[in-house]
Amino acid sequence: MTDLHLPLDRATGRLAAQIAAGFRSAVRSGRLTAGTRLPSSRDLARDLDVSRGVVVAAYEQLTAEGFLIARRGDGTRIAPLARPDDGAPVAPPAGLGDGAAPRPRGAAPPSPEPPPSPEPPPEAALPYDLWPSRPDLSAFPRERWIAAARAALRTLPHDVLTYPDPGGVPALRAELAGYLARVRAAHTGPGRVVIMNGVAHGLSALLGLLRAGGHTTLAVEDPTSVRQVPMLEASGLRIVRVPVDGEGVDVDALAGTGARAVLVTPAHQYPTGVVLSPARRAELIAWVRGVDGLILEDDYDAEFRYDREPVGCLQGVDPDRVVLLGSVSKSLAPALRLGWAVAPPAIAARLCEHRENTDLGGPVLEQYAFAEFLRGGGYDRHLRTMRRRYRTRRDALAAALNENLPGATVHGVSAGIHLYVELPAGRGEDEIVARAAQAGVSVAGARPMWSAARAGHAPPALVLGYARLTETRLVEAAELLGQAVTHGAEG
Amino acid sequence: MTDLHLPLDRATGRLAAQIAAGFRSAVRSGRLTAGTRLPSSRDLARDLDVSRGVVVAAYEQLTAEGFLIARRGDGTRIAPLARPDDGAPVAPPAGLGDGAAPRPRGAAPPSPEPPPSPEPPPEAALPYDLWPSRPDLSAFPRERWIAAARAALRTLPHDVLTYPDPGGVPALRAELAGYLARVRAAHTGPGRVVIMNGVAHGLSALLGLLRAGGHTTLAVEDPTSVRQVPMLEASGLRIVRVPVDGEGVDVDALAGTGARAVLVTPAHQYPTGVVLSPARRAELIAWVRGVDGLILEDDYDAEFRYDREPVGCLQGVDPDRVVLLGSVSKSLAPALRLGWAVAPPAIAARLCEHRENTDLGGPVLEQYAFAEFLRGGGYDRHLRTMRRRYRTRRDALAAALNENLPGATVHGVSAGIHLYVELPAGRGEDEIVARAAQAGVSVAGARPMWSAARAGHAPPALVLGYARLTETRLVEAAELLGQAVTHGAEG
Repeated sequence: MTDLHLPLDRATGRLAAQIAAGFRSAVRSGRLTAGTRLPSSRDLARDLDVSRGVVVAAYEQLTAEGFLIARRGDGTRIAPLARPDDGAPVAPPAGLGDGAAPRPRGAAPPSPEPPPSPEPPPEAALPYDLWPSRPDLSAFPRERWIAAARAALRTLPHDVLTYPDPGGVPALRAELAGYLARVRAAHTGPGRVVIMNGVAHGLSALLGLLRAGGHTTLAVEDPTSVRQVPMLEASGLRIVRVPVDGEGVDVDALAGTGARAVLVTPAHQYPTGVVLSPARRAELIAWVRGVDGLILEDDYDAEFRYDREPVGCLQGVDPDRVVLLGSVSKSLAPALRLGWAVAPPAIAARLCEHRENTDLGGPVLEQYAFAEFLRGGGYDRHLRTMRRRYRTRRDALAAALNENLPGATVHGVSAGIHLYVELPAGRGEDEIVARAAQAGVSVAGARPMWSAARAGHAPPALVLGYARLTETRLVEAAELLGQAVTHGAEG
Repeated sequence: MTDLHLPLDRATGRLAAQIAAGFRSAVRSGRLTAGTRLPSSRDLARDLDVSRGVVVAAYEQLTAEGFLIARRGDGTRIAPLARPDDGAPVAPPAGLGDGAAPRPRGAAPPSPEPPPSPEPPPEAALPYDLWPSRPDLSAFPRERWIAAARAALRTLPHDVLTYPDPGGVPALRAELAGYLARVRAAHTGPGRVVIMNGVAHGLSALLGLLRAGGHTTLAVEDPTSVRQVPMLEASGLRIVRVPVDGEGVDVDALAGTGARAVLVTPAHQYPTGVVLSPARRAELIAWVRGVDGLILEDDYDAEFRYDREPVGCLQGVDPDRVVLLGSVSKSLAPALRLGWAVAPPAIAARLCEHRENTDLGGPVLEQYAFAEFLRGGGYDRHLRTMRRRYRTRRDALAAALNENLPGATVHGVSAGIHLYVELPAGRGEDEIVARAAQAGVSVAGARPMWSAARAGHAPPALVLGYARLTETRLVEAAELLGQAVTHGAEG
């Protein structure tokens, strides 16, 4: 370990993040190989002249991401799953990027679940809007966005106004590659970043590629967002649901489906808010390698992690088996329809080809504006502002729920812009949603987000988005909700 | 005819266009029915107190569009094909919009043509850029576009920043409906206009619908744009080519293919520049009704018609059998990726559903900016400016070709932003393209745009885009081209 080069810039702070980045880089370059034992946190802290807590935080971060394994009595080692980036792209997963069409393997798949009933339409007109998945649109930086667009448009040569690169404007792909490597610990080597019109667009294109490559089945978390179910079903793939528990998606159950592709939300599961545990991350990576498959990682809400350093994306652990999908829909506004996929080069090339054969790529002015926003630090500043704002709102709602809904259990507080609130046993979810609406509070029940097979067993729960209301109004909403729950028990 | 209400606003001028619009409206409302004989131009001119030339121009326009039929000795009558709009949408064409999957009928189709060889990559680096299909990007109204975007973004409520209507921003759909009805004589009733990311996007989505509806074959003009051939083939439909002659697409040959769907460019055929003749328009409409099929009308270059009133779109003649596809790619810039489809309501609903299942709709800020640009008259002003500019350039190039390429025949001068130049017999197209490139002039040969079966028989020709060069440089380019042709004959 003496040759481990971990340069620290003490002026910029965030020493734990710097140490973690140094280890990731050492693993990817091959300088640290699987099984290598790391120095104890005490020793490394002394070597680096930092406090022991800094090293512990870095090790925890890397363990959570799947780069390290900590075993009692065996110290901390580089995980066997952490793969060096040898510069030469490895072969793409079978059935994707190479035109081959293998059949799925593994256990006989269960019958597909019938689709869940759709979520009721959002009650936007109600005075207290706790409908989930909506960012605070009043915070969209209109003036700064227009300024970025104008700055871009004033300096661009005429030729960028012709038919675009179908995979996205090079300037944005480069800025995003830097951003996602820095903030999400993604592996964003050349030829991997493709611009799409949001996560749904990337997902629908990838499902088409999976089907063309011989996949017949897609595994999806249970519960999941009801919104995307029609799109998933329109792909022609059979959709099988895999239960989520307190550690995230159940990989044993996944292995039993026979699927070789899975859609997951590791950063903050929707709707339960669970962060995928380190053990499950390792199991999931082992699974995808074993079935020669593909993980579609919806980096949902990853920008908003409040109480600790965000966990790096799964894609950074195995960039040849994971496609990272992200967008600005939660961080800026869904109406921008601006997202990305970070994929193995062969799959990224197929995504570009898909755009060439469908819409010839997305509008370039917004892409240049976003690139400018990233380059000038405006995006980072905006995210910091929103993180502070959302954290304050989360604290207000969580405290008010604690006070007004005794007996309820609040999940998913550590990240995202919604809470998953299990109601006291015996309370009827539909009735509470209806009573809340009567009292002027728009909330979503969780049951429609579960598969039909499991909806009956899941405890009644509400999914509460807190992004759009001030603290005062969140407290008022929690009081009204508390009354609805109490009346629900009486009635 | 005495109850024919033709209100004229003499202050605004364009009396012939007003008269034509009045007749179209009377046909659509059912006030004028098929076979009705119109007053002579002399009588109507006296009734309306306008010059006879004005009425003649209106009648010619309506005849060109297929609303009227003029027969020697029988006067002018409402065409039997002109269908009133009875308010209730008629049944959509079989196999589209209703989930039915009829088999194609008609004669046994010929074998599909092998794909033509691709166009060589554009030689943008050459000093004289005559590559076709590129507008003058230096004329993009950057400041006015940003001003329109800012004006929109400053006044929009926050809620428009959420997930958009997948079929497009209502304000833009309404503005476009008005614009296309006024300028292209399109029938843009409620539920017909859908925003897409350009013509290619609309086309690829429609081909998917055709396939899902049981279509197996798509007829395409011969010659055609090579650029879109890979996209057409990616649809999974069998592509059959139908020859274009001096009147446009050969409808007898089309009927022999067995196809029930055809992609045409009636306003200005690409690349020959032919405007579809009134007789062929009528034949094409009769064909599509006979086969219970669908016409995909690429309204290519329709904004730029120089020497007379533009012919209304085919969609206005039979809005239940024709889908109109257009975009701002030639009028503003391809990089905006902003286009539209005007379709029968059932097909328009399917297009919206397609977007819901793929990219959830396009970015809204550009749509609001374009709506603002349309509403404020900026788009009309921009088009007038560009029409004047392109017309001057066309005149310069056509005159210079006449002088420098004796024996060449120039086609397609009346509209668009390119010319189709048949070379004197015996000249080798490839050699001339190569010699022109050596001399610094980037031109496209026409042969790759023909099907393999016909490429050998078509006279050697060049396709010359004149949008991007000033008159002086166009004259210089024609001189260099003349030398290349002369040397080509000597060598």
